[in-house]
Amino acid sequence: MINLEKMGAAAQTATLEMSRANTDIKNVALQAIADGLVSSEKDILTANKRDAEAGRRHGLSNALIDRLTLTSKSLLGMAADVRSIAALPDPIGETFDERVLPNGLRLRRQRVPIGVLGVIYESRPNVTIDVSALAVKTGNAALLRGGSETIHSNLALVQIVQRALQQANLPQSVVQFIADTDRKYVSELLRLHDFVEMIIPRGGNSLHRFCRENSSIPVLTGGIGVCHLYVDTSADLAAALPVIENAKVQRPSVCNALDTLLINRSVATELLPQVVARLGHLGVTFRAEPRTISALQGTTRNLVESKVIPAGPDDFDTEWLSLVLSLKVVDDLDEAIDHIGTHGTSHSDGILTETDSHAQRFVNEVDAAAVYVNASTRFTDGAQFGLGAEVAVSTQRLHARGPMGLPELTTYKWVVRGDYTTRS
Amino acid sequence: MINLEKMGAAAQTATLEMSRANTDIKNVALQAIADGLVSSEKDILTANKRDAEAGRRHGLSNALIDRLTLTSKSLLGMAADVRSIAALPDPIGETFDERVLPNGLRLRRQRVPIGVLGVIYESRPNVTIDVSALAVKTGNAALLRGGSETIHSNLALVQIVQRALQQANLPQSVVQFIADTDRKYVSELLRLHDFVEMIIPRGGNSLHRFCRENSSIPVLTGGIGVCHLYVDTSADLAAALPVIENAKVQRPSVCNALDTLLINRSVATELLPQVVARLGHLGVTFRAEPRTISALQGTTRNLVESKVIPAGPDDFDTEWLSLVLSLKVVDDLDEAIDHIGTHGTSHSDGILTETDSHAQRFVNEVDAAAVYVNASTRFTDGAQFGLGAEVAVSTQRLHARGPMGLPELTTYKWVVRGDYTTRS
Repeated sequence: MINLEKMGAAAQTATLEMSRANTDIKNVALQAIADGLVSSEKDILTANKRDAEAGRRHGLSNALIDRLTLTSKSLLGMAADVRSIAALPDPIGETFDERVLPNGLRLRRQRVPIGVLGVIYESRPNVTIDVSALAVKTGNAALLRGGSETIHSNLALVQIVQRALQQANLPQSVVQFIADTDRKYVSELLRLHDFVEMIIPRGGNSLHRFCRENSSIPVLTGGIGVCHLYVDTSADLAAALPVIENAKVQRPSVCNALDTLLINRSVATELLPQVVARLGHLGVTFRAEPRTISALQGTTRNLVESKVIPAGPDDFDTEWLSLVLSLKVVDDLDEAIDHIGTHGTSHSDGILTETDSHAQRFVNEVDAAAVYVNASTRFTDGAQFGLGAEVAVSTQRLHARGPMGLPELTTYKWVVRGDYTTRS
Repeated sequence: MINLEKMGAAAQTATLEMSRANTDIKNVALQAIADGLVSSEKDILTANKRDAEAGRRHGLSNALIDRLTLTSKSLLGMAADVRSIAALPDPIGETFDERVLPNGLRLRRQRVPIGVLGVIYESRPNVTIDVSALAVKTGNAALLRGGSETIHSNLALVQIVQRALQQANLPQSVVQFIADTDRKYVSELLRLHDFVEMIIPRGGNSLHRFCRENSSIPVLTGGIGVCHLYVDTSADLAAALPVIENAKVQRPSVCNALDTLLINRSVATELLPQVVARLGHLGVTFRAEPRTISALQGTTRNLVESKVIPAGPDDFDTEWLSLVLSLKVVDDLDEAIDHIGTHGTSHSDGILTETDSHAQRFVNEVDAAAVYVNASTRFTDGAQFGLGAEVAVSTQRLHARGPMGLPELTTYKWVVRGDYTTRS
């Protein structure tokens, strides 16, 4: 019988100890996690096989089976990620905003762990290790709730984490796994506000919505992006093409991949046929408005007929996560900004332009976590931004926006030192 | 009939315009609010009188009537506060964390408004003006829900704000007031996550709890403090006394006032009688544990008998907001830290000591928004910290902790500029 209150209380106690643990000890635990992933490969892969077999029995799609399957190689990759988190600077204890007030008080902010994180995720078992490693490094504790489809893998991975914590003389309750897949525990976790400070859902739209609507704890939503690029009149079209290709094709299954290409009408007849030809040959299919289709007259008829479909009513609100691209011709910058305001998800949007005032307006008026000028949207990522690692890409507005690295998993306390100072 | 969805949508549209408004225009609106408070004094005071009379008819306590009553003087004070917010630097547009990545991408974070704030408050009508001014300055919009006991005052004040917005050519829907006092609108506001980004409750514990438990929007709780000072063995006792007095007596009705004094047993018999004598003469009464009472043998018997009551079971968890002080003798620093961990509310706690290692441990191990060494707890305040103004003192851990000034009412976007840069 699972007692979430007890788990929460244990996690809260563990964070106290973690907030006092020095960097070396936390890194010992991280190295031990990495070592465990390698030395326990056999156990993990056996557990993972059970999940995959159960998945097949329950009729999970091949894509899902693929997503949950671990290999020797992916375990090595996970171990390498954990070691790179160990190598990152420890944000805890860092001080900032130091100042001396006129009355002599010395004031500063000091980074401290947030506390207990509740993480609810689906399919990918690597999240178990990612979140554990980020939590350990930042002195937080985590209550993990993985999907039923990866229960055996997750249990094997959590065991490695807890063994590593023990080796570092840190409390095992720093990382706890909710081992019962009954959905009621998700709802219970979302009401555990006496112990849990932040809920991080990692999964689809419906999971995010469920968390937001049923949680009494702040929910860090994100990871869902309908991403745009707008090609302005002055863009260097030859240079724009590889950026569009990169944003759409380099890794279409992720949240920062391009979903909608907006093209200024002045360059549409020149650029659109090239986009359809170049990306079409890479397997991309297109959803286009009538006006866009007529701008495609310069393209080989066969290519258009086989690749371009008239856009349906929801297409411009769809995160494709695959080799599909929505196309729209717009009159001007205003229409592009308006379109993004209506259909965007505040994730990653960019402009390709040589006109500085347009770049400036786009940056100021497009309300996304990451706004790009002359770059691919694919950069919205903790590692790409030089943050080292990320727990999620936040598309909500409180606490942190965009890639959440180690500092975003901390909060601060104000430290005030005086000389028996009183307020007058 | 009030349509909160409509109000929310109008507020969201208004934030778009506000995020583009320059500092001068926002300051024009702020000056107009200040002017309006002075020139419309008669209307405001008439409306306020209606609230006070209704309050008396409904049997409101004198303290509550007092709290809601406005005067010429308090209106002048409110106007001065608004002008000082106008004089503060505008955080919007400020950039930070600029860097150039190895691939040439130029990355920075740029401060932007949070969006629509939902503010739920009781009694004090000045909150209407405070929040409006802070929202205007930071380019946010606000949906205000004041208590029924100040409905006429709030309506008069909101009219002044909206007139000022109009004068500055800013949309009036930047500040909207929910004019129906039916409680169902509070619940509705708490579920308006499609439009509202943050809920700020200003009121007692039960309001905070209600918001947290019924909101699908992140709730910024705070403003409730069971505050501690711990007098360590090495403290300069003569210097400690004025600090204890200041923390307890200077303004007992506020959240950063002292609630519990912890005294190391080695100095208890020397210090306690002085505390009881000095603060007792200023009207303070005490709740003390048996061990503390026996340490008071050096005090005039009459004073102890008239002022010191044995502590009840909840006394150490009580925010007194009045001239009451809990007293406890502790064995050592560990017991002090443990006591604060168990009974504190993570608001403001301090140590008085000459031992640097003890100060260090206290700072690291006490988990409060503001941790003090040799200073009064009364400094936890936006103005005192040099932040200029505050919308609340946050005691939760996400987004902001402690006094929330203008920057804490903002979020940021990542701005990335490249040269048609692609991810490899």
